[in-house]
Amino acid sequence: MDEKKLTPKSENYSEWYNQLVQRAEMADYAPVRGCMVVRPYGWALWENIQDALDSRFKATGHVNAAFPLFIPMSFLEKEKEHVEGFSPELAVVTIGGGSVLDEPLIVRPTSETIIGYMYSKWIQSYRDLPLLINQWGNVVRWEMRTRLFLRTLEFYWQEGHTAHATAEEAEEETLQMLDIYTDFARNEAAVPVIPGRKSETEKFAGAVRSYTIEAMMGDKKALQAGTSHNLGQNFAKAFDINFLDENNTRQYCWTTSWGLSTRFIGAIIMTHGDDQGLVLPPRLAPIQLVIVPIYRNDEEREQVLPVVERIKRELEGIRLEVDDRTEVTPGFKFNHWELRGVPLRMEIGPKDVAKNSVALARRDIPGRDGKSFVPQAGINQRVSDLLETIQANMLEKAAKFRDDHIFEPKDYQEFKDVIEKDGWCFVWWHPDAENEAKIKEETKATLRCIPMEQPGGQGKCIYSGEETNIKAYFAKAY
Amino acid sequence: MDEKKLTPKSENYSEWYNQLVQRAEMADYAPVRGCMVVRPYGWALWENIQDALDSRFKATGHVNAAFPLFIPMSFLEKEKEHVEGFSPELAVVTIGGGSVLDEPLIVRPTSETIIGYMYSKWIQSYRDLPLLINQWGNVVRWEMRTRLFLRTLEFYWQEGHTAHATAEEAEEETLQMLDIYTDFARNEAAVPVIPGRKSETEKFAGAVRSYTIEAMMGDKKALQAGTSHNLGQNFAKAFDINFLDENNTRQYCWTTSWGLSTRFIGAIIMTHGDDQGLVLPPRLAPIQLVIVPIYRNDEEREQVLPVVERIKRELEGIRLEVDDRTEVTPGFKFNHWELRGVPLRMEIGPKDVAKNSVALARRDIPGRDGKSFVPQAGINQRVSDLLETIQANMLEKAAKFRDDHIFEPKDYQEFKDVIEKDGWCFVWWHPDAENEAKIKEETKATLRCIPMEQPGGQGKCIYSGEETNIKAYFAKAY
Repeated sequence: MDEKKLTPKSENYSEWYNQLVQRAEMADYAPVRGCMVVRPYGWALWENIQDALDSRFKATGHVNAAFPLFIPMSFLEKEKEHVEGFSPELAVVTIGGGSVLDEPLIVRPTSETIIGYMYSKWIQSYRDLPLLINQWGNVVRWEMRTRLFLRTLEFYWQEGHTAHATAEEAEEETLQMLDIYTDFARNEAAVPVIPGRKSETEKFAGAVRSYTIEAMMGDKKALQAGTSHNLGQNFAKAFDINFLDENNTRQYCWTTSWGLSTRFIGAIIMTHGDDQGLVLPPRLAPIQLVIVPIYRNDEEREQVLPVVERIKRELEGIRLEVDDRTEVTPGFKFNHWELRGVPLRMEIGPKDVAKNSVALARRDIPGRDGKSFVPQAGINQRVSDLLETIQANMLEKAAKFRDDHIFEPKDYQEFKDVIEKDGWCFVWWHPDAENEAKIKEETKATLRCIPMEQPGGQGKCIYSGEETNIKAYFAKAY
Repeated sequence: MDEKKLTPKSENYSEWYNQLVQRAEMADYAPVRGCMVVRPYGWALWENIQDALDSRFKATGHVNAAFPLFIPMSFLEKEKEHVEGFSPELAVVTIGGGSVLDEPLIVRPTSETIIGYMYSKWIQSYRDLPLLINQWGNVVRWEMRTRLFLRTLEFYWQEGHTAHATAEEAEEETLQMLDIYTDFARNEAAVPVIPGRKSETEKFAGAVRSYTIEAMMGDKKALQAGTSHNLGQNFAKAFDINFLDENNTRQYCWTTSWGLSTRFIGAIIMTHGDDQGLVLPPRLAPIQLVIVPIYRNDEEREQVLPVVERIKRELEGIRLEVDDRTEVTPGFKFNHWELRGVPLRMEIGPKDVAKNSVALARRDIPGRDGKSFVPQAGINQRVSDLLETIQANMLEKAAKFRDDHIFEPKDYQEFKDVIEKDGWCFVWWHPDAENEAKIKEETKATLRCIPMEQPGGQGKCIYSGEETNIKAYFAKAY
């Protein structure tokens, strides 16, 4: 299966993606429509994503907890926009223990409501605030068109839910988590996301303000890769989350929620992958280095293997695999690990043994340009340095690709041309939900975000021509 | 709330447990009947349990993955005993995305069936074996009588599922995982479990042989704290999990499954807890040490706090908390952390500052006997050593308690007397499902396990009088 060539990205991007996810053994389709099995290699990547995020959450004072999978239907109805947003995509449990339930239970699509209910029990005084809780878990949204990682009925994520004494604090928290997502995406995943605010149309059902990190995929479509919501007092009022402040006055809390899901694995695949397969960022890669011993006979084998063993020991702290299979050729192994995106390959053959060197091949630079021969002495430092170089190069390359496909059209006609060719438009924008809807209808582009980093100055709205000081990104999106 | 005394264990054990779980903020009842919220302090304990198990799983070649929450109803029906065992406790999704589903989906009560289905796709050749996968996740069993951690509709666990080429290998795996659970329970949780085999009556629905670790709780009831099942070829045949062996002959696989859940938190609470609250084993405790600064005025405060800060820095690697709240008294803080079972408390007051010492109070030995005054010099080593001492003492104490309540009655009358007084019986037993059922009816005791460690020799069955070389434990159980 490995040896069959992937459909090239340029030929059929979506087919390339589907083949890659399955052949690299990241995920598989489950027997239930739209559900996925995350296979061990994909889950190992998710575990590394979890570690990178979890340590950032804990460093900023958050703790983890677990709230129930099932939510009474009536809870959802307490927040009007929330229920409108989520009711079309619910999975509903109507039978339990052989009996029809009095009140159907929904399988959580997100947990604001049930967590809001618990917070109203736990929060009494300003001393209980802020309450900063995160949950790692699974949620279910009944999507009609699904794709592995990008959109599945069940997916895995973290959802943070916090409660604060003031509006300012809640907004600070919302932005802090946006920063954490941005930092994680850029520095761990080498995905150069653009952080920004969602439009009123695109914000979370029940939020006052939604923020997002937007990433450009290899086909130039945008992917919303993580979101952070300021919920204002909407859920606090719906669930009566209140506290006595320092003056003994009862106040509603201000709450936030923020999430990043296994969808991010799709972002990594589509940001870095090439026609040979995955290209995984070293900091998150389950396997950072694969060592392939090269020999043609027993004599060479006896020369090579002890050196492989010694070097393996010296590479402590590097996540590595020695591919000592005897039933396949080195060429087969190269393809195998390239498909799986292992950042660095080390080859050790009799010549390397004789010269006290090894050959290294970078996954991010295919072919001869990515190959080097280095001394065995100090190999741990060399490999560590090279992994950092690869990490940096991947970010740079992705940022260049992104910037090369962002345009600043001067009028709506040019805007349409850019979108037609799958570019992103960065344009002056006068916020208006109706105009936003028309653009979507006319071009399929949506407002991805109003980036935090604004150029300043002002200009005429690309659609209405009204004066505005806001610039926004528009693009087709997943 | 903290300051209200717990109902003593001796007065009402079950009430003591319920109060403790909630007041120590381990868990709370959810608004859905029988579901729980695991609060941050409880979840931090579970995270430490997860780490301790996960590292053992990985060290023995297992990898993690994620399989779907939803299972088609028809899957369960493929293994006859399995569906009989689980069908009374299923939660069923009948509506998705607003429409009635053609085939109802069950929320997984355990994942043998769906994993079996995937394994039949993935396994082709002996080269694909063994397949050693574990999953951390949530499952749902519609229980009628529920208690936090011990029995809840939804609970959290790990479930390992492995496939092997031979019966011997599958049995080895099953026993290896039993050993891992035993080692974890004893050496991380200080819970002196007894590993053994389940009777035919008590084994897992669909298993050939089930193994268990059984723990004695503070009220002397038994708790099944983890199980490991040899599934033989039952699921392999039901799901057509087969492979081509080295002779190119198609064979069914031999599979196993094994699980340990958040129920284990209940085991920790009920093995070690006392009338003051939790007593957590140092290796798993979310907070191993709490430092309480003691001062009566600003002057003393300024003497004490810098020393607290310095010692905190010196205690790197110890999971600690400094309780510097000003609105409550030291006495309140002592109760607060005793309730939460923090293994070690350090008090630092002006006298300690003057003498370059600190006071240490052990949670496992209440009162003066557990208190010591030690020099500040070398504090990290002292604290580490003391935590190890506490860990060892907790195991020893629990093992003594267990052994003090295991009896070897000489006849069935004495057996009934022991069970009546909530002791465990260790007796000669001639396996017989009917007799086992009668004993259960007559005494409420069940066969907990046939321990791996057998005394040898033979004797007369406690019930039938038949000669046998098997000894077994009987007890009332959770």
